Amino acid sequence: MQTKTRKLDHIRITVDSDVEHPGKITLLEHVELVHRALPETALSSIDTSIEFLGKQLSMPLMVTGMTGGHPVAARINCVIARAAARLGIAIGVGSQRAAIEDPSLEYTFRVARDCAREEGGDVVLVANLGAAQLVAGYGVEHVRRAIEMIDADAVAIHVNAAQEAFQPEGDVDFRNAIDLVAEVARELDKPVIVKETGHGLGYEVVYVLRGRGIRFFDVSGAGGTSWVRVEYFRARIRGLQGLAEAAKTFSSWGIPTAQAVVETRWAAPDSCIIASGGVRTGLDAAKAIALGADIAGLALPVIRAYTVGDLDGVIGLLERIGMEFKAALFLTGASSLAEARRLPLIVSPELESRLQARGVKLDLYLNGARLLFKPGETCSNWA
Amino acid sequence: MQTKTRKLDHIRITVDSDVEHPGKITLLEHVELVHRALPETALSSIDTSIEFLGKQLSMPLMVTGMTGGHPVAARINCVIARAAARLGIAIGVGSQRAAIEDPSLEYTFRVARDCAREEGGDVVLVANLGAAQLVAGYGVEHVRRAIEMIDADAVAIHVNAAQEAFQPEGDVDFRNAIDLVAEVARELDKPVIVKETGHGLGYEVVYVLRGRGIRFFDVSGAGGTSWVRVEYFRARIRGLQGLAEAAKTFSSWGIPTAQAVVETRWAAPDSCIIASGGVRTGLDAAKAIALGADIAGLALPVIRAYTVGDLDGVIGLLERIGMEFKAALFLTGASSLAEARRLPLIVSPELESRLQARGVKLDLYLNGARLLFKPGETCSNWA
Amino acid sequence: MQTKTRKLDHIRITVDSDVEHPGKITLLEHVELVHRALPETALSSIDTSIEFLGKQLSMPLMVTGMTGGHPVAARINCVIARAAARLGIAIGVGSQRAAIEDPSLEYTFRVARDCAREEGGDVVLVANLGAAQLVAGYGVEHVRRAIEMIDADAVAIHVNAAQEAFQPEGDVDFRNAIDLVAEVARELDKPVIVKETGHGLGYEVVYVLRGRGIRFFDVSGAGGTSWVRVEYFRARIRGLQGLAEAAKTFSSWGIPTAQAVVETRWAAPDSCIIASGGVRTGLDAAKAIALGADIAGLALPVIRAYTVGDLDGVIGLLERIGMEFKAALFLTGASSLAEARRLPLIVSPELESRLQARGVKLDLYLNGARLLFKPGETCSNWA
Amino acid sequence: MQTKTRKLDHIRITVDSDVEHPGKITLLEHVELVHRALPETALSSIDTSIEFLGKQLSMPLMVTGMTGGHPVAARINCVIARAAARLGIAIGVGSQRAAIEDPSLEYTFRVARDCAREEGGDVVLVANLGAAQLVAGYGVEHVRRAIEMIDADAVAIHVNAAQEAFQPEGDVDFRNAIDLVAEVARELDKPVIVKETGHGLGYEVVYVLRGRGIRFFDVSGAGGTSWVRVEYFRARIRGLQGLAEAAKTFSSWGIPTAQAVVETRWAAPDSCIIASGGVRTGLDAAKAIALGADIAGLALPVIRAYTVGDLDGVIGLLERIGMEFKAALFLTGASSLAEARRLPLIVSPELESRLQARGVKLDLYLNGARLLFKPGETCSNWA
Ligand SMILES: Cc1cc2nc3c(=O)[nH]c(=O)nc-3n(C[C@H](O)[C@H](O)[C@H](O)COP(=O)(O)O)c2cc1C
Ligand SMILES: Cc1cc2nc3c(=O)[nH]c(=O)nc-3n(C[C@H](O)[C@H](O)[C@H](O)COP(=O)(O)O)c2cc1C
Ligand SMILES: Cc1cc2nc3c(=O)[nH]c(=O)nc-3n(C[C@H](O)[C@H](O)[C@H](O)COP(=O)(O)O)c2cc1C
Ligand SMILES: Cc1cc2nc3c(=O)[nH]c(=O)nc-3n(C[C@H](O)[C@H](O)[C@H](O)COP(=O)(O)O)c2cc1C
Repeated sequence: MQTKTRKLDHIRITVDSDVEHPGKITLLEHVELVHRALPETALSSIDTSIEFLGKQLSMPLMVTGMTGGHPVAARINCVIARAAARLGIAIGVGSQRAAIEDPSLEYTFRVARDCAREEGGDVVLVANLGAAQLVAGYGVEHVRRAIEMIDADAVAIHVNAAQEAFQPEGDVDFRNAIDLVAEVARELDKPVIVKETGHGLGYEVVYVLRGRGIRFFDVSGAGGTSWVRVEYFRARIRGLQGLAEAAKTFSSWGIPTAQAVVETRWAAPDSCIIASGGVRTGLDAAKAIALGADIAGLALPVIRAYTVGDLDGVIGLLERIGMEFKAALFLTGASSLAEARRLPLIVSPELESRLQARGVKLDLYLNGARLLFKPGETCSNWA
Repeated sequence: MQTKTRKLDHIRITVDSDVEHPGKITLLEHVELVHRALPETALSSIDTSIEFLGKQLSMPLMVTGMTGGHPVAARINCVIARAAARLGIAIGVGSQRAAIEDPSLEYTFRVARDCAREEGGDVVLVANLGAAQLVAGYGVEHVRRAIEMIDADAVAIHVNAAQEAFQPEGDVDFRNAIDLVAEVARELDKPVIVKETGHGLGYEVVYVLRGRGIRFFDVSGAGGTSWVRVEYFRARIRGLQGLAEAAKTFSSWGIPTAQAVVETRWAAPDSCIIASGGVRTGLDAAKAIALGADIAGLALPVIRAYTVGDLDGVIGLLERIGMEFKAALFLTGASSLAEARRLPLIVSPELESRLQARGVKLDLYLNGARLLFKPGETCSNWA
Repeated sequence: MQTKTRKLDHIRITVDSDVEHPGKITLLEHVELVHRALPETALSSIDTSIEFLGKQLSMPLMVTGMTGGHPVAARINCVIARAAARLGIAIGVGSQRAAIEDPSLEYTFRVARDCAREEGGDVVLVANLGAAQLVAGYGVEHVRRAIEMIDADAVAIHVNAAQEAFQPEGDVDFRNAIDLVAEVARELDKPVIVKETGHGLGYEVVYVLRGRGIRFFDVSGAGGTSWVRVEYFRARIRGLQGLAEAAKTFSSWGIPTAQAVVETRWAAPDSCIIASGGVRTGLDAAKAIALGADIAGLALPVIRAYTVGDLDGVIGLLERIGMEFKAALFLTGASSLAEARRLPLIVSPELESRLQARGVKLDLYLNGARLLFKPGETCSNWA
Repeated sequence: MQTKTRKLDHIRITVDSDVEHPGKITLLEHVELVHRALPETALSSIDTSIEFLGKQLSMPLMVTGMTGGHPVAARINCVIARAAARLGIAIGVGSQRAAIEDPSLEYTFRVARDCAREEGGDVVLVANLGAAQLVAGYGVEHVRRAIEMIDADAVAIHVNAAQEAFQPEGDVDFRNAIDLVAEVARELDKPVIVKETGHGLGYEVVYVLRGRGIRFFDVSGAGGTSWVRVEYFRARIRGLQGLAEAAKTFSSWGIPTAQAVVETRWAAPDSCIIASGGVRTGLDAAKAIALGADIAGLALPVIRAYTVGDLDGVIGLLERIGMEFKAALFLTGASSLAEARRLPLIVSPELESRLQARGVKLDLYLNGARLLFKPGETCSNWA
């Protein structure tokens, strides 16, 4: 099957079907911010701005990469870029492999930059390629081409082993992938973000990558879009009974987002962390920042908002999230992201116990690794 | 929108809609009193009286402030006052801002005092103004006027940041609020009660306020009326989609009542604590007293009882709560509030863990801070 | 209302309505026996016999006191006695107050002894009076009359404060009750069993009673019949709205049976303990014995079995429970009650935490107090 | 009733009725494998082979013994054997007692070996007899006959006390069973596997058996087929009300599979462990191996797949499980079973607490006993 067709498939399924981890949660629900009855601040004086990849965001929010490689995708990328430029948040595009292979498709990605500029915004834009492509032979020059194609501020190398494992045509060879990612990162002059796609980065992988020089991570944990579940729907549609059942078994596989954020910060305290996977509200985003992330990312709600309401839909969604994010800071008495990072948190015994099993002592984390850097502090100065 | 109209709006919504914290509980459900099979007391010899603000209550119960500023509200305040006078419990009125701004409305508050006197009762009556008004320019003279307006025994300065954050016209500036409250308290010769409105006082705020001389707290925690949820209904009615969704996200925001009581007593052991927010039965009230509160307060059930049954409805409700309260003491073998405060408690691991996250070691609390004062001991002698 | 009428009321309601603690459980569900795949015993060689009050039971089971004082009750007492005699288990009669006040009713209790004898059985039979009656003036001579009336092996003094608290005509004076019970016990030459009626004995009460010479306890904990709930139904029928609501609030009040057994054994290690309240299967009974009880008791299922199936119904029920009890011992590899008492147990963290809150360290209990005596060892030799 | 008829009964009920432990789970759901976003392996290079009883399996999977003794059973055994031979996994036959008693039925078991050979496969095949038969008089010669009948690689001596306890005709004498099993094991030159049938092996039994020389265990824990539940259905069909109710009470009796695996490895670290009972997916199998088992076994799904889809059904099921098993290893970054055994695990507090109650300290287990041997290392070299 063509990459192009598959991409449209994916969009259709994610928009129409129930593709989120069934019964699984991000565990951000297990993190509670503490109400401050007298905030000693004004909503209007709360500063949510953050430096990300050398540019200023109005809010630590990112629409993570979803699409490209098709006229429909071009339209989506343009709309998301416009909304982001207006609101001052970051965006990514979907995997650029299609355009690397067929340059006539480059425009479907480039619109992200172009439309943002038309809005007068100097949007933070992240390119996207898969680690599996590196294993399959792509080198630094392909990655560079992806970056240049859209004048990106960084490139996300996505890792999606869980999804690939349940595709008939899946790329299920990740040997040497860490070496290859590290090599690309070493040769590029833009940062490489290692990015999951909904099943979560964990301690072991992050620790090794950090040792190899990677300092940007999009944890994309379990609790939101489940790519295994998307493949379950695809297998069912195509009558692949066995594959469908197997995919179902793994539908909620992965490391929940809250846990992934903590594991990542614990493994690489000086890294820049994007918390995505099931982030649905500004309250989720605030919890993620308080827990140790620098930026909160989301994907699925944005494409759904686009489908229902086009540009207005996307802007409405992002404004609502922004409103909630500010409210969360206001109601906890935090006037800035730096203060948000120091907030007291009530973490459920269940999440605490999971972290313990992963080698993280919660109180050491909250009072230690979490507090080493301010949000954004590790997101711009890279070597 | 006019304060006056908004107030009626509020009453209508709280009476008719499901405005309680969805899925959230007061955590009084996580506190269990222990049955004493042989109580060694007689129901009739149980003494539930308590001194509050220099007067004697027959029972540590208060109907906290709800309304005023409208003919309908006047009627409600009168009925509540009559019931309270008959039963010997305390009451408060709703925010008196409307009457400060328009003296022709003063009567709608004054009825509380007048009707109580008609019943021959020397009811404890608490005035009410918002901290946001202090930030907006009100000074000690306005507060004094509110007190004098109803010959109040104390004044509650309510803090409702959570609600304000989800009003289009919200007062979302709480800078300096603590200073302003402290200043008012210093200048008045009646006590200032800092009062939440359903999202809970917590350790940090109480600790600072106590340091600034405040010694009365109405914790009004999460689990009962959620003002964010009220605003959610209002936003929906007014077609404010984004605001409604954001309010929904925060519908169950806040510190549950049981937790708020403990945090408050821990932060200010020598304070007088009203436990409100989701108190629905005399058993809830007894748990709150045992856990460290001096007085239990409630609001929503009273206005609903009024709507259904007028004076008889309110009296019926309060009598039932009184009966339950006495039964709780009887069945735990406590002959007085002082004994109730020393009862053994079974606290769920979940609440214990939440308190731990908030810096409270449960056994130290139960055997320490909780036992320092008898109920009411800290509620009358203020400087 | 007449005691006699009330008694019939009670039977009707308990048989027809859902009178068990709503949502509350005995916590025997939180105790798990461990399967022994190779039991090294034969079902037929398991000895479940136990000495109780100087006589031999075939199984540590008792139908606790329910009724008397009415022709219908006489019939019930006779049937239960026959079944018990055939199966070799113990029984009690309901409160004998009615017959003390009106000797023409004595036969309704005496049938228990007579019918048992007709079956040729030397049944263990327990008389019954209320502690509230002692407070109201009954003395040792009344208790002696109750014992003699049925040639009882012991007398249960029931304590039912929870029920009385929600009766309009309730006896809610328990002052001096402990003294009075202790005095009666001292003067009688048959043992006094202090017996709850479905809301549970706890540490404090048992500890004091043991210090006053009481050594027999029927814990009758929460999880089975809730007498407060019975009174809720009665209040509703009689249109007493406030009382009904208050009773509803306390419907599941009390100490769950499993917890009550442990608290009782902890407070009085050398006592004879009947575990009743929600015992519904032989597996429940086996858990209760393993946890520290000497005898398992039940009431409600027996009267319901009587209603549906008369003598055959009662025998069928008790045989099924016996079968389950033996199976539980067989499948845990226990050949006797003494071995059952030493079985490993899996106790849920929730029950462990509740016991901790009550001053009981679970492992010390299981390996200490629990093992001091064999089942029955403390049930016969009294001074 | 004839053994033969009973066996068909059993098959019909297990296939048609809901015979799995109601509400009980294997607790494998309480064990979580940790996603490895960058696996550093290729799906195709994962080696799942294992040596079992001297032969090589392609995957650590076994269809445990179910049937024989009837023409229908012969057909089932043949189909399962063909599927196993094609896929390279192990199988067992059901109890061979019928054929020992009536040699004309031997073919119904022998087909397992014959059909496997027709597929050209050198399948691992396990004979089967009940421990209760040993107690009833069978000796080593009967067991040897069962082995020779099918040229088996080992013999499973099943222990099914729970089932027998709820059969009217049950063999409920297990006195000396351990001695008898040990004696047989000593005299045979093929290994004896002590095998539960769905209610779980536990620490005590395994510890004693290991001391008597047994080194192969099929834990067959609670969470899958419940034989007590099967007997419940049979009793109901036959109108045995009391027996049916008693069986219902014990429907979910037993040690959950995950717990049984750990207890077994803890009691006998150098044993070969088959994890069966509720294994339904390859993910379950992978968890079982990671937790300490050598082989994962299953029964019920296979006979159901046979009923619905004959040979194709069985192959489809086993292939799907194989696919899931490989995916689990791939997505945790394990290239071999040895690596799978060393994977980090997230064990729920509930399972941890249950293990603690059973004398197993989880972290000592995971980092100690679990790691002593590689999967399969203890499954071939026996004396
Ligand atoms: C329609 C769609 C397409 C996606 N395509 C890509 C992609 O090409 N590259 C990538 O790195 N992630 C891709 N993702 C993953 C998202 O960036 C994100 O990591 C994941 O969906 C979890 O976030 P969510 O729960 O907010 O959707 C896609 C997600 C969606 C919903
Ligand atoms: C209709 C209504 C109006 C209220 N108005 C006020 C107010 O004016 N001032 C105030 O301090 N609290 C006000 N409250 C809050 C209550 O005093 C109380 O803190 C809160 O409702 C939680 O208690 P409950 O769960 O028993 O309702 C109001 C509550 C209700 C239901
Ligand atoms: C119909 C009925 C009448 C009862 N009457 C008495 C009584 O007169 N005296 C007494 O001590 N307990 C009485 N009880 C309480 C029982 O003895 C027992 O303690 C309680 O019902 C809990 O056990 P269960 O859950 O098995 O019913 C009665 C119970 C029932 C169901
Ligand atoms: C139809 C059927 C027949 C069985 N017969 C036997 C048997 O004869 N011998 C035996 O050891 N186990 C027997 N078992 C038990 C299985 O081997 C296995 O231990 C148990 O069913 C738990 O695994 P499951 O949950 O995957 O079914 C049988 C199971 C089934 C479903």
